[in-house]
Amino acid sequence: MNDTFFTRRSIRKYAGKEVDNGLLERILTAGTRSSTTGNMQVYSIIVTRDQEMKRRLAPAHFNQPMVTEAPVVLTFCADFNRFNTWCRQREAEPGYDNFLSFMTAAIDALLVAQTVCNAAEEEGLGICYLGTVTYNADQIIDILELPKGVVPVATVTLGWPASVPEQPDRLPLEAVVHHERYHDFSPELIDDLYAAKEARDDSRQFIAENNKQTLAQVFTDVRYKKEDNEFFSSRFLKVIKNQGFSL
Amino acid sequence: MNDTFFTRRSIRKYAGKEVDNGLLERILTAGTRSSTTGNMQVYSIIVTRDQEMKRRLAPAHFNQPMVTEAPVVLTFCADFNRFNTWCRQREAEPGYDNFLSFMTAAIDALLVAQTVCNAAEEEGLGICYLGTVTYNADQIIDILELPKGVVPVATVTLGWPASVPEQPDRLPLEAVVHHERYHDFSPELIDDLYAAKEARDDSRQFIAENNKQTLAQVFTDVRYKKEDNEFFSSRFLKVIKNQGFSL
Repeated sequence: MNDTFFTRRSIRKYAGKEVDNGLLERILTAGTRSSTTGNMQVYSIIVTRDQEMKRRLAPAHFNQPMVTEAPVVLTFCADFNRFNTWCRQREAEPGYDNFLSFMTAAIDALLVAQTVCNAAEEEGLGICYLGTVTYNADQIIDILELPKGVVPVATVTLGWPASVPEQPDRLPLEAVVHHERYHDFSPELIDDLYAAKEARDDSRQFIAENNKQTLAQVFTDVRYKKEDNEFFSSRFLKVIKNQGFSL
Repeated sequence: MNDTFFTRRSIRKYAGKEVDNGLLERILTAGTRSSTTGNMQVYSIIVTRDQEMKRRLAPAHFNQPMVTEAPVVLTFCADFNRFNTWCRQREAEPGYDNFLSFMTAAIDALLVAQTVCNAAEEEGLGICYLGTVTYNADQIIDILELPKGVVPVATVTLGWPASVPEQPDRLPLEAVVHHERYHDFSPELIDDLYAAKEARDDSRQFIAENNKQTLAQVFTDVRYKKEDNEFFSSRFLKVIKNQGFSL
């Protein structure tokens, strides 16, 4: 398999060079070959190239500079709108206004998103996912004019790398792979699996910068806090309902 | 980029040949290089090779023959269990018992799943996603002994293709790609976008076999019915809550 599977890392700084329309189309076409439930293709991809549109999207992504600096921003959406429109035009009554259908469409969208990213990286492009898409989906819906039945689930910035940062660490494979049955984690195993991560200079720096005792506390108390999660949780649930998927 | 992005199709019939452990490990390692929120890696992969375990999983997947016939079945899970265990062991109080955290973990799991599939296909392996995983997640949780904090979101069968079926159709790119803003679909555009699909022999056969008037009715009245969607919807929501993510 292609080396980029192993050497890749997210790219947050992009060179000025444009992404050619033909290349973008090839990458998106590769995406459309991904598996999709029942070949319904219940997803859509919004391509943002216009600088004014990027400027409008930026606050929804907490003004992360990639949004305005990347030549292309892609927003992948769970989308039953097109499918439902087709059904109604063909004397068929769609029953996709429920949470399972939202998940089905979100899964379609995410598999396409990742194929687009893998294909882009094999061409030498760099990508970065923006987790903010689920936080501020309501704002993104307004800006991109997404109708009922459409919910954004992944935003990716795309462009030629200006510089290639160090590859981030990953936990050992046994932290994420279980054979036959889930093996729960003993305190000793947790210590082993996280030892290398906790020993890294950047981890120690994170702890010091944030005045914390442990790396885990940087996550729970600073980066991904309970109150923020709960705030964005209820907002995203409201978006799902507003877009026509009942819970 | 690799040709398989364009030539791939799901594989449902597998040759007897085993998938080598080393190869499987390389493919899974490629998966772990996928983007993950905050590098938390809040996912897990359950590898099923044991014939008895496949036999037990089969009913949860409506006895689709791929489950017992494929040499490998992979279940990708949204997983905050390991991360929460680590946090608690490091004097950090995790606040990930909410819907947003479930979505964050599901996104991690789905991006990894798709990279694993893309990498496998570049090695000549065939894959098939089983949508049944979200329908019967409760049974899968029991069989694979998934603890609180873990929810299966994708199941993939993996093996060497016994035969390569015809590649299924896809809608034209303009059905799924929108530039700058979502363009809603006029009746004429819907007719255009679905014309080739509706003209296919297999589509006509589907309609005839199911005694329907339109292809869309095959989806709404036979394959993905409102009452089934609603039944599995409430079941999956219950699973998410039972596994510790409040709504």
